[in-house]
Amino acid sequence: MMKKNKKINAAILIIGNEILSGRTQDKNIAFISNWLNSKCGITVDEVRIIPDKEKIIVESILNLAKKFNYVFTTGGIGPTHDDITAQSISKAFKVKYEFHKEAYSILESYYGKKKFNDGRKKMAKMPRGARLIYNPSSAAPGFIIKNVLSLPGVPSILNSMIENCKKYLMKGSTIHSQTLSLYTVESNISKKLGQIQKKYKKDVDIGSYPFFRLGKIGVAIVSRSSSKSKLKTINLEIKNLAKIKKIKILKI
Amino acid sequence: MMKKNKKINAAILIIGNEILSGRTQDKNIAFISNWLNSKCGITVDEVRIIPDKEKIIVESILNLAKKFNYVFTTGGIGPTHDDITAQSISKAFKVKYEFHKEAYSILESYYGKKKFNDGRKKMAKMPRGARLIYNPSSAAPGFIIKNVLSLPGVPSILNSMIENCKKYLMKGSTIHSQTLSLYTVESNISKKLGQIQKKYKKDVDIGSYPFFRLGKIGVAIVSRSSSKSKLKTINLEIKNLAKIKKIKILKI
Repeated sequence: MMKKNKKINAAILIIGNEILSGRTQDKNIAFISNWLNSKCGITVDEVRIIPDKEKIIVESILNLAKKFNYVFTTGGIGPTHDDITAQSISKAFKVKYEFHKEAYSILESYYGKKKFNDGRKKMAKMPRGARLIYNPSSAAPGFIIKNVLSLPGVPSILNSMIENCKKYLMKGSTIHSQTLSLYTVESNISKKLGQIQKKYKKDVDIGSYPFFRLGKIGVAIVSRSSSKSKLKTINLEIKNLAKIKKIKILKI
Repeated sequence: MMKKNKKINAAILIIGNEILSGRTQDKNIAFISNWLNSKCGITVDEVRIIPDKEKIIVESILNLAKKFNYVFTTGGIGPTHDDITAQSISKAFKVKYEFHKEAYSILESYYGKKKFNDGRKKMAKMPRGARLIYNPSSAAPGFIIKNVLSLPGVPSILNSMIENCKKYLMKGSTIHSQTLSLYTVESNISKKLGQIQKKYKKDVDIGSYPFFRLGKIGVAIVSRSSSKSKLKTINLEIKNLAKIKKIKILKI
């Protein structure tokens, strides 16, 4: 029997000093989260960004893999000394860190035998038992072991690989989202909005986000639910609230 | 006596479903981290993004406040029902969640007595013992209690408040950073670069980041250290490596 409201969640673990230091603006979190949500019905419930340090990677992997259905890691699977994701995951799961036969042959044929140097070979080393996540843009595969999926940090490469994660994932119920943007300030509607949230707290999550658009101040009210009909009801309630308070609704 | 190499670190805790869901692209992490690094000599060693759920906020605050010198929270200090940062921090530190006298009077005079409704009053409620972080753009102050500093989630407002955090922070030794961009691929230099990192591992952190610029592939090598002279040495070593390998260096 099909289970209704099947909640499946994930964590994202960003591994990389360059994001922590502020040198690089992360783009993977929003991309992965949007994809999981819209394509797989999976909700991201936590994100962590940590440095390239083995002890911290091991601890974070063990902690998150226990708490969530899936953990997506990004970064640290390239050829250089600071790429230590695969060996750290091996250590976390107490399995051998070794050449993956198929990954080795993919990389060898991509670079050619002569140019297949030690750095490139390193990208074929994975935790024993890992299955591959194919990489259509630069060959070096990601991998999945247990409930941990490891992807590269470069956004364009990660984006090209994400569809290849799908076959390893259970599908949850899609969370629908609906946004109403009101030309008002939060404190003008906070009380009523809190009451609406309370009334539907079992089925709908309502968030309220101030915005500035073309010199005007507003509040985007985002409702999220697995039930489309509940979202329709919320829509009416918020429109009604706007009417009572004489608030203009932004048409988009 | 002045302590050399005083390492002071921080964590950033982003509180907000809108970032987790991918609806909003976070901009605060890079901003706060850059500011802490360049203005205060403080290194961000972990970032977490969590939902607006009291239990999770309480746990994360207690965990991070213990592990790092400072914790910066963003989000959840507005007037709506999903703004629960201040009460969650009160719970974490087992102190009363109550009106802060000065915050109350700042907000009352900003909105005027008549328009100072319940939602707006909520923004004056803080953990007992909190000190204010003034807000030059929209009045509602942030606060610090123990080693936790709470800022709003809207980037433009957060940016305008960050300087007001400074007086509460110890200053660490500034970490200098140096980037050399080489027109090559990582796997061509990974071995030699790993040797350089090994040689200077006590004093310098070397990271290697692929880039695509104007159709060309390259690697940005970022070295970070509190010692400028060590960075100069690294600079020479990497330039030498480029020379041996006949790699062009990008001039910027």
